[in-house]
Amino acid sequence: MYLTNRNSAHPLRHIFSLIATPGILTITTDFGTKDGYVAAMKGVILGINPAVRIVDISNHITPQDVMEGAFVLRNAALTFPEGTVHLAVVDPGVGTPRKPIAVRHNNQFFVGPDNGLFTLLLSGSKPEAAVELTRSRFWRSETPSPTFHGRDIFAPVAAHLSTGLALNAAGVPLNELKSLHWALPITDERGVQGWVVHVDRFGNCITNITKAQFLANHRDRLFKCYAGNAIIDTLSTTYGNVDIGDATLLLNSNDFLEIAIHRGPAAQMLDIRKGTPVNLVFSDERG
Amino acid sequence: MYLTNRNSAHPLRHIFSLIATPGILTITTDFGTKDGYVAAMKGVILGINPAVRIVDISNHITPQDVMEGAFVLRNAALTFPEGTVHLAVVDPGVGTPRKPIAVRHNNQFFVGPDNGLFTLLLSGSKPEAAVELTRSRFWRSETPSPTFHGRDIFAPVAAHLSTGLALNAAGVPLNELKSLHWALPITDERGVQGWVVHVDRFGNCITNITKAQFLANHRDRLFKCYAGNAIIDTLSTTYGNVDIGDATLLLNSNDFLEIAIHRGPAAQMLDIRKGTPVNLVFSDERG
Amino acid sequence: MYLTNRNSAHPLRHIFSLIATPGILTITTDFGTKDGYVAAMKGVILGINPAVRIVDISNHITPQDVMEGAFVLRNAALTFPEGTVHLAVVDPGVGTPRKPIAVRHNNQFFVGPDNGLFTLLLSGSKPEAAVELTRSRFWRSETPSPTFHGRDIFAPVAAHLSTGLALNAAGVPLNELKSLHWALPITDERGVQGWVVHVDRFGNCITNITKAQFLANHRDRLFKCYAGNAIIDTLSTTYGNVDIGDATLLLNSNDFLEIAIHRGPAAQMLDIRKGTPVNLVFSDERG
Repeated sequence: MYLTNRNSAHPLRHIFSLIATPGILTITTDFGTKDGYVAAMKGVILGINPAVRIVDISNHITPQDVMEGAFVLRNAALTFPEGTVHLAVVDPGVGTPRKPIAVRHNNQFFVGPDNGLFTLLLSGSKPEAAVELTRSRFWRSETPSPTFHGRDIFAPVAAHLSTGLALNAAGVPLNELKSLHWALPITDERGVQGWVVHVDRFGNCITNITKAQFLANHRDRLFKCYAGNAIIDTLSTTYGNVDIGDATLLLNSNDFLEIAIHRGPAAQMLDIRKGTPVNLVFSDERG
Repeated sequence: MYLTNRNSAHPLRHIFSLIATPGILTITTDFGTKDGYVAAMKGVILGINPAVRIVDISNHITPQDVMEGAFVLRNAALTFPEGTVHLAVVDPGVGTPRKPIAVRHNNQFFVGPDNGLFTLLLSGSKPEAAVELTRSRFWRSETPSPTFHGRDIFAPVAAHLSTGLALNAAGVPLNELKSLHWALPITDERGVQGWVVHVDRFGNCITNITKAQFLANHRDRLFKCYAGNAIIDTLSTTYGNVDIGDATLLLNSNDFLEIAIHRGPAAQMLDIRKGTPVNLVFSDERG
Repeated sequence: MYLTNRNSAHPLRHIFSLIATPGILTITTDFGTKDGYVAAMKGVILGINPAVRIVDISNHITPQDVMEGAFVLRNAALTFPEGTVHLAVVDPGVGTPRKPIAVRHNNQFFVGPDNGLFTLLLSGSKPEAAVELTRSRFWRSETPSPTFHGRDIFAPVAAHLSTGLALNAAGVPLNELKSLHWALPITDERGVQGWVVHVDRFGNCITNITKAQFLANHRDRLFKCYAGNAIIDTLSTTYGNVDIGDATLLLNSNDFLEIAIHRGPAAQMLDIRKGTPVNLVFSDERG
């Protein structure tokens, strides 16, 4: 489970791979960074694995927005090495019977509530392994706080996994995970209808239409994209390909179709928000 | 002072405890994360102890709100291992004669201004040891900036403590610490009056009434809790025990009485803010 | 390139300097911390150098504000040890022909776009070395995403530098860097005119007038400072030297002239924002 550090040019890489790199643990929550809740989890984690590398993916997920957590986690997890443990707590059902789980997928580990948080990264495939977390000896206490499973169940289990604990030691096998209703875009003879699933800090509007879906429909034809108050007919490779203030479509760094404005916030300027429909209509003419 | 790492399942834990874990250092400030002030402290710290683990507890304490800093620090510090050094800088009196101090409590170390920041974690007990920071050889320079003791005094002293420096090497013993006026709830024959001391990101309202105080008065009797525009008569173990949109009392993960709404922000919906009185009146009937 | 850890009191410092401290890597961006973009870079970095220490300087630079990024980076970088690698991505021109570069200055390394981000820390001097990043074998892929050079070019190159890669292995020498138009204050016989270049979280207003410039003009004479709606005639060593609510000048912890109010936000109270002119007029009388 330790990082194999294949690409490193470091002359001491063999020593590192044995001693100094006992795992990476990421955190994705809707806890914010003001109240100290994330730090309380880190205290627990470092008490179990003092040498782990902790990376915050995001602690600013909109409160209780499982879909947003799933989207941000999926995109960031892609860049982490094998063996990384991802702790994710966006958990409106804390204390109710929803299950605490751990999952292995692409040789990474995911720990959190069974409420669909891991749907997007699995993208329809079955996980390599999944367990319900039932072994309280790996929890912070036998009687976890019913309002803070992040600190008392998920964080300590994630920390133990980062030390090399086997997944099936943490609980009992689970065959079926809860899945988010992540509606796929609708395709018909005229085009594709999807919608905006995330607005980022720059006001870029990311849709649920994948690069593959767009290209399969595009086939170099002219198109019009209706979204918010805009009709967009250009596809650019980068923001700077259109004039400042102009809107364009892009295939973004995570291979989703994105609506952007060069040096401006597309969401505010085009009256788009999360959930806004995006209609792509293709003409018969070539672009 | 190194972490003893008692719970770790890691097979190399003995090597880690000797080499790879020279201490954890947490940071709690009102500096925000935009201006680079916290990073300036981390640069100083890593120059002194390049192997230390730095964890941000919170850098979003309301500017100059010592009470909020004390509250957040107290709750998060509880989960950290023995030997952890906590650097805390909420310091409206920087550059005035308030003392720079370091304190040992529960085998953890706390470094910051003597303005009451450590009152809540001490909760009435005397610290195991306390010093006024007078040894400028452990500072960044003999002439620290009068507006940034965090960078020039507190951070370097905390870093030196994390390398194993003895507390009494950093300064001269101090017998009395400044204390926050942290009014305790008032109890009479009808009930308990406390108030809201923190509103978290979810709008949960945390009171200064402890679990022990609540239970001692409750004794399974019916009650009414008056706070903001609400009268609450239920105590739940978790948010999901009441209907969506309903308010309830909880005994929270840090053993304080909390006012919450299932999937809603209690503070906004009930017109509660920090400082709002909370009146608990108990009836003679059993619940 | 490893930290020499000269000041540490740690008894194992020799072992640390060989094994456990393979470099510090800082991050300065306008990406925010919600969307997971910074974490995507950290995943790439840790895949290359699993033992690196990552420190966020700021991820809350105002979107596309290169000047603000340059200012925050310059101030924080000063406190970091030699050998530190600073990754900085405020990059409105991503995907356009602006060059990706790496620079050595004061034995620290800086990686980012060639758009002036490093102007302030160089402060007019030539860098010790600079290269255009042309060696794609140190990138995440031969075909980096045109909208996320942070993840696909800058982060992996910075990570390789932190493992000890030589600067000139990463690209071809570059003689001229782009420079920000960072207008210096204007000095005449009556005084100095500068302006506010940064407003921090506390509402403190930092000008582009350096301590040296101020003192050279001041020579203990009385003065009036006109800024926003205020006329200020006091210079203090710390905020607490004036009454609560009063405005004062300070020479701040980074040796710039600053306008502050004791326990109040000067920017809001004095109607000052980034770009507001600051006029210092000196009288012939001594203060």
